[in-house]
Amino acid sequence: MGSHHLGQIGIIGNGSWGTALAKILTDNGNTIYWWVRNTEAVSYLQNRYHNPHYLTSVRFIADTIRPTNNLKQVMESCDTVLICVPSAYALQVMEGVDKKMWQGKNIISAIKGILPESNLLLNDYLITHYDCKLDNYVAITGPCHAEEVADERLSYLTFSGLNDKLAHEVSKAFNNTYIHTTCNHDIWGAQYAAVLKNIYAIGAGIAHSLDYGDNFLSVYITNCYREMYHFLKDHFEKVHPSNEKPDFHTSAYLGDLLVTGYSLHSRNRTFGTMIGKGYSVKAATLEMNMVAEGYNAARGMQAISKTYSINIPIASLIYKVLWESLTPSDAFLKLEKMLS
Amino acid sequence: MGSHHLGQIGIIGNGSWGTALAKILTDNGNTIYWWVRNTEAVSYLQNRYHNPHYLTSVRFIADTIRPTNNLKQVMESCDTVLICVPSAYALQVMEGVDKKMWQGKNIISAIKGILPESNLLLNDYLITHYDCKLDNYVAITGPCHAEEVADERLSYLTFSGLNDKLAHEVSKAFNNTYIHTTCNHDIWGAQYAAVLKNIYAIGAGIAHSLDYGDNFLSVYITNCYREMYHFLKDHFEKVHPSNEKPDFHTSAYLGDLLVTGYSLHSRNRTFGTMIGKGYSVKAATLEMNMVAEGYNAARGMQAISKTYSINIPIASLIYKVLWESLTPSDAFLKLEKMLS
Repeated sequence: MGSHHLGQIGIIGNGSWGTALAKILTDNGNTIYWWVRNTEAVSYLQNRYHNPHYLTSVRFIADTIRPTNNLKQVMESCDTVLICVPSAYALQVMEGVDKKMWQGKNIISAIKGILPESNLLLNDYLITHYDCKLDNYVAITGPCHAEEVADERLSYLTFSGLNDKLAHEVSKAFNNTYIHTTCNHDIWGAQYAAVLKNIYAIGAGIAHSLDYGDNFLSVYITNCYREMYHFLKDHFEKVHPSNEKPDFHTSAYLGDLLVTGYSLHSRNRTFGTMIGKGYSVKAATLEMNMVAEGYNAARGMQAISKTYSINIPIASLIYKVLWESLTPSDAFLKLEKMLS
Repeated sequence: MGSHHLGQIGIIGNGSWGTALAKILTDNGNTIYWWVRNTEAVSYLQNRYHNPHYLTSVRFIADTIRPTNNLKQVMESCDTVLICVPSAYALQVMEGVDKKMWQGKNIISAIKGILPESNLLLNDYLITHYDCKLDNYVAITGPCHAEEVADERLSYLTFSGLNDKLAHEVSKAFNNTYIHTTCNHDIWGAQYAAVLKNIYAIGAGIAHSLDYGDNFLSVYITNCYREMYHFLKDHFEKVHPSNEKPDFHTSAYLGDLLVTGYSLHSRNRTFGTMIGKGYSVKAATLEMNMVAEGYNAARGMQAISKTYSINIPIASLIYKVLWESLTPSDAFLKLEKMLS
């Protein structure tokens, strides 16, 4: 299949999602440079063709991956860079790269969060701080648990970019028998949807631990979708009124909320379950050995909703549980009365 | 709490849903006449205060229920009649009652289907054949597995009627600590949503049996919602343009689709799983000892979509599997290409 228009592709990050994306690209005939922080993982990938800690079942085809812990080498070698690290580490990773190296590169973001230091989406941060061009940016979103990509079970991904040709080329690089792709222009909305859904998934976990049932969960998620829909619509109309409005009843928006809110694989949902059971954020984070994206996202979206004057009352209640010591049961007593 | 404005209430039907509704009404202080076809069930309810076959864990408060297999007696004694039988048997049950007896009664429908003989919603049938008044009609919908009502887990019900006062009185009769209620005017849309969701749930079961995963299921249900949304919106604008348009991102519409599509309790989903595994409709029906509502609904909605010229391509594919021997795997190969 190749990727001539994209040139050489590099991937930054080797968590589950980065590993799944590497699998798709290499299955499709691409050779990738791959920045992997951990040297043990580098040699594992070099010698045994799989990741030691994430999606270990994925065995790469020999010679399709060039793992390294030298980020500069990846940046120098690649025309297209896919960034796939937790949003909390993105800044730290990017600071290791000279500003000039970002110029002219195609940037694909698979980060599902806002940068916690600035409350900015990656594209807004790169434009402000690295003089990147929005025309070179494509965001990947969609309901896509990495575990199911490893099993090659049919999944749908959405590629959002203002540059039609680039978005199309990127989507083509990922499209195959088990990945169906679509493109749109909605860089901001698609990413905000991906951020919001992690907050709502924490709420789904809290609801589960407070012993609400399936009937309630369906009403909760329905109301989360209504809130997400209004946020996206209002944001779109306030900030990008001249663009073509996307259909929000699609996989990147409602679909991603559903898979995250309903799946027991979801780490944000698991985090919420612990919070609902009375774990502190610190204890839950230690127990999971990771920061759930929705935790910082709740604070970020709280700030963003104020910036744009768009209310997101459900996400705000989750924020207050995580950051202002509102108890989960008090939050849900309030929530019960808000739902319809 | 009482129900003075509703007068004496009667319930027709004692399946799981009828039993759950009887529990709510009697928990709220109402005494109900209850038509139960099976004489064994009548004496069980009279002597042991619970149903022998459905929601057996629900024990009624003594003297709050008056079970009988004499339908005329129920009709003569009651001012408000709640109908809760499978749509396939509704006509047969109603034929046992003299036309005059329906006059002036408040009719609450908890039937989640269209009458298969006429492809009509119950309200349209009653108006055409029994001279009932639309002003006396209220439909109950919402994501509400009866099993969770039995456990008194918080659930949300929607009461749709053109007569605000009646809808409000009915909703008040059901509202309590574990049932939250809302009202709207959308008799047709709320009921069509309840019908469509059973068809889509059969599809969810088929997808499950064909080994699609959570990623796919979320995309499938998202696209079902988009189709439902467009059907409801188009139908509303074509048939009831002067009414106030309801918010479809609420529990009676999206919520009911979610609980039915995702829950393993759903009988339509179970039926779909058998169909996907290669059972014939007849074998699946025998195995389940009941007709899944979505089976007749698929044929009914196929006709209704033609009547109103509103396409519902996903529901049509399920229809073709159930009624025109399209194989489940061929249907889903087509479906894969339609989703986004």
